[in-house]
Amino acid sequence: MDNRPIGVFDSGLGGLTCVRELERVLPGESVIYFGDTGRVPYGGRSRETITKYARQDVAFLRSHDLKAIVIACGTVSSAAIELLRAEEALPIFGVVEPTARRAVELTKNGRIGLIATRATIASGAYEQFMHRADRAVQIRSVPCPLFVPLVENGRTQRGDIVIETVVADYLAPLKEAGVDTLVLGCTHYPLLREVIGAYMGPDVRLVDSGAEVAHELADYLARRDQLSDGGAPGHHHWFVSDSQQGFRDLASHFLGRPVTEPVDKVDIESY
Amino acid sequence: MDNRPIGVFDSGLGGLTCVRELERVLPGESVIYFGDTGRVPYGGRSRETITKYARQDVAFLRSHDLKAIVIACGTVSSAAIELLRAEEALPIFGVVEPTARRAVELTKNGRIGLIATRATIASGAYEQFMHRADRAVQIRSVPCPLFVPLVENGRTQRGDIVIETVVADYLAPLKEAGVDTLVLGCTHYPLLREVIGAYMGPDVRLVDSGAEVAHELADYLARRDQLSDGGAPGHHHWFVSDSQQGFRDLASHFLGRPVTEPVDKVDIESY
Repeated sequence: MDNRPIGVFDSGLGGLTCVRELERVLPGESVIYFGDTGRVPYGGRSRETITKYARQDVAFLRSHDLKAIVIACGTVSSAAIELLRAEEALPIFGVVEPTARRAVELTKNGRIGLIATRATIASGAYEQFMHRADRAVQIRSVPCPLFVPLVENGRTQRGDIVIETVVADYLAPLKEAGVDTLVLGCTHYPLLREVIGAYMGPDVRLVDSGAEVAHELADYLARRDQLSDGGAPGHHHWFVSDSQQGFRDLASHFLGRPVTEPVDKVDIESY
Repeated sequence: MDNRPIGVFDSGLGGLTCVRELERVLPGESVIYFGDTGRVPYGGRSRETITKYARQDVAFLRSHDLKAIVIACGTVSSAAIELLRAEEALPIFGVVEPTARRAVELTKNGRIGLIATRATIASGAYEQFMHRADRAVQIRSVPCPLFVPLVENGRTQRGDIVIETVVADYLAPLKEAGVDTLVLGCTHYPLLREVIGAYMGPDVRLVDSGAEVAHELADYLARRDQLSDGGAPGHHHWFVSDSQQGFRDLASHFLGRPVTEPVDKVDIESY
């Protein structure tokens, strides 16, 4: 039993879709969340810049007494996880490994699609882990740089010609390639699940990276007897690097529930 | 005569549309440009964060020997220029004042539209300067948060249903309000001039903030006999806070010419 909280960070608010899954799978756990809203988005930046920002994010989380860290950001999980693990004593969970394994388990025709930010695609991390699980799978990757701003501006509904057109533009090559499994390789993308699902059709399985890492963490904590005692629901604490104003409204969108816990601001550049 | 360069900064590459105008109006001047590509965009961030970033941007430019500083960023010009001027001996030119004055000169029916980032609109700076020039003008403002990512992803062409739809969504209230003058209050927006112009119709005058500040600076330098000797075209030097990779391609888009001058990286958080 271990009642210390789990540290979760993301470039911004997308990682809250991962916290939503954590709450579903591990309702007794407490979470310290950091969203780097002052420097979001990471997905179009260089590996060097992403690594620098991620180190600061981890350093801030480490100012709390945690039992594990979750990188709820596809971009950081792809570009910097090895380095962060090498520098850190706590276990660090990223979205890429469990999601890649799950996609390989699910595919029947061996053709997997991957959509993510430019930096995630450029890192080749998903391909690497999928090929480690099964050398024979064929992977088609497409960077979708407009998805994050469209989600953040609420353009997520079916019937909205803007998101429908952008989804079709990005996903057409994957549909043509006949993928039967599609990895949503960015934690913003679950908010587009309906539009993406409708475009790809009912035979294509969508794999949500936030959900996969939540399950992996649950298994890990259970095996090591590190789950919380579950005497009460977990206590969360939210931290952001830009003003807290507006956080609750936007965050509730990603989290799927009202945000009632404390929200504080962090000077992340000082870490 | 003063051959020192002009310092220009922006949250990213949008400010290059302003340098393009500077090159047209003042071809003999040298420019030191800083684009904060590691922290772009500024337009959705709080005034506090924008001010902090802008101070670092000015501090970096001041590590060069300059004759003037241009804030080629609508967001910073709106949110932080008074404070930057109070802290700085060099003259600082922002896009808001000259653009606001020009819009008031141009309007015939006294109805002016303003499109810009959320932070620019929230600051009220444009309204303030327009009302200072003419108390009677009516101003309608619309934040257009999707324009920057759409421009940066090349969706600027007429006939693209995505940009056409987003332009119509944002600008419909301005068209209905019967504005005869529309301020492009963000230096990214000149790349949408054609789509916006087609939507608003030929009777609406578009005012480009980058062009207005270039003219204001030219007048100022001429009056003070601080123009360069014009013996040769100016030398430019580009600086960015993320990797230089890809800068030349994207920048040439905004600048309207190939980028041949040196590009260097700056650790902006250390300023």
